[in-house]
Amino acid sequence: MSSPPPPKRHKDVPYELLYWPGLPGRGEHIRLLFEEAGVPYSDTAHAKDGIGAVLTQIKPTYPGDEGNTPLLAPPMLRHGGLTISQTPNILQYLGVRHGLAGPGDDDVWRVNGLALTALDGFSNEVHDCHHPIAIALYYEDQKEESLRRSKDYVANRLPKYLAYFERVLKAAGGDWLLGGTLTYADLVLFQCLHGTEFMFPKAFRKAREGGDYARVFQLVDAVQARPKIKEYLASEKRQKYSNGIWRYYEELDVVPEEQ
Amino acid sequence: MSSPPPPKRHKDVPYELLYWPGLPGRGEHIRLLFEEAGVPYSDTAHAKDGIGAVLTQIKPTYPGDEGNTPLLAPPMLRHGGLTISQTPNILQYLGVRHGLAGPGDDDVWRVNGLALTALDGFSNEVHDCHHPIAIALYYEDQKEESLRRSKDYVANRLPKYLAYFERVLKAAGGDWLLGGTLTYADLVLFQCLHGTEFMFPKAFRKAREGGDYARVFQLVDAVQARPKIKEYLASEKRQKYSNGIWRYYEELDVVPEEQ
Repeated sequence: MSSPPPPKRHKDVPYELLYWPGLPGRGEHIRLLFEEAGVPYSDTAHAKDGIGAVLTQIKPTYPGDEGNTPLLAPPMLRHGGLTISQTPNILQYLGVRHGLAGPGDDDVWRVNGLALTALDGFSNEVHDCHHPIAIALYYEDQKEESLRRSKDYVANRLPKYLAYFERVLKAAGGDWLLGGTLTYADLVLFQCLHGTEFMFPKAFRKAREGGDYARVFQLVDAVQARPKIKEYLASEKRQKYSNGIWRYYEELDVVPEEQ
Repeated sequence: MSSPPPPKRHKDVPYELLYWPGLPGRGEHIRLLFEEAGVPYSDTAHAKDGIGAVLTQIKPTYPGDEGNTPLLAPPMLRHGGLTISQTPNILQYLGVRHGLAGPGDDDVWRVNGLALTALDGFSNEVHDCHHPIAIALYYEDQKEESLRRSKDYVANRLPKYLAYFERVLKAAGGDWLLGGTLTYADLVLFQCLHGTEFMFPKAFRKAREGGDYARVFQLVDAVQARPKIKEYLASEKRQKYSNGIWRYYEELDVVPEEQ
């Protein structure tokens, strides 16, 4: 589809982001989109009882908002009569509405594919580096397995995904994943790499210094330098990493072993 | 957005699905959508050199089709000038075009959210039950960890996701996840559960007999009974499970331990 027209009935009502307070997490991709677009939004991260607001929406007895399905987990977005979940879904909804899903016919599908791939490689897989066995268990109950998985991640997965995005940027022939126009996929890639660098600083330093992914790191720097993003990152609204997807454990801060 | 109009320039060209031959895998969700919609498509699973066709498209030196980004992994869809990847992305593209993304304004976002959640719970998490440490390693190199993860999956994750979809169906008040109208999210949920049952038959028998997820299993049966799906499942086009996402290992076929 070409960028579809936004539905009229939601047009002038505020956006509400529902996500756990206390860490950037999956909500951060959505916040960066709002900030870059200059769109106001409320955020349970800064609400009086943000945890309660999230829990109410996902508790097993909650039937779902009128006309919407029940939701399993945050991030969630409420916008007029619509309440939806799933990070890439919310991003696409907002990206289409605010001109961040590409200029061309069909770019919305390219951008969605890129965002999903960045989330696979630098969010989902990274989370599992400290929880390879069970989300229900503490990290301390799966430390050995986490180390094994982290070693594999920095040796195989990190270079695979970095090389992929380097290749995309090379083919695009511009500063951004689609070439000349910033899209929300660039914001997602920035946040994903920012978080993954927090978790694996040594492997990242090596990757940056190696020079094989120059375009990718240029994109990271370029996103951080955008005025609205820069202002947001320096503000109190930007939360610190904590016990979320991207965590720092000294023993997991490994580099690929020399062959 | 309300269901957007399909882009005209792709309208009358054939669909090409690129996916590994020899197993249903992530390509199967897309095949089921094609079959239910009655839309013709080519499929590298049944092509002369299907593996070669997939490999060509994802090899690191391939710059991407004209105007498209390079792609990392199958499934991939080629349709006229557009080549895209990522299962939920392809499903959404096709679902919108073929009336399987819901009848109402904004249903496309609800359906995408449901499909992403089903893929999280019954495809991505299930895959990691036999590969919790590294995709680069054989199952045999991570058997102990796989058993630990599988025990957690059937005890915690499987009931969590089954209960969620039961709740969605209850709130919808009809046979399908959106109520009265079949969408591609129903097809995804069917395939996800069909595959997960293949991997964990004992836990599934227990879940079915327990009666807590009656609506979910009714949906599984109802999808299988749809004439086009039924015909497809009985045909030679339907491939057998193999060493893909959904695998059978006797030692992983566990049931939740009694408390």
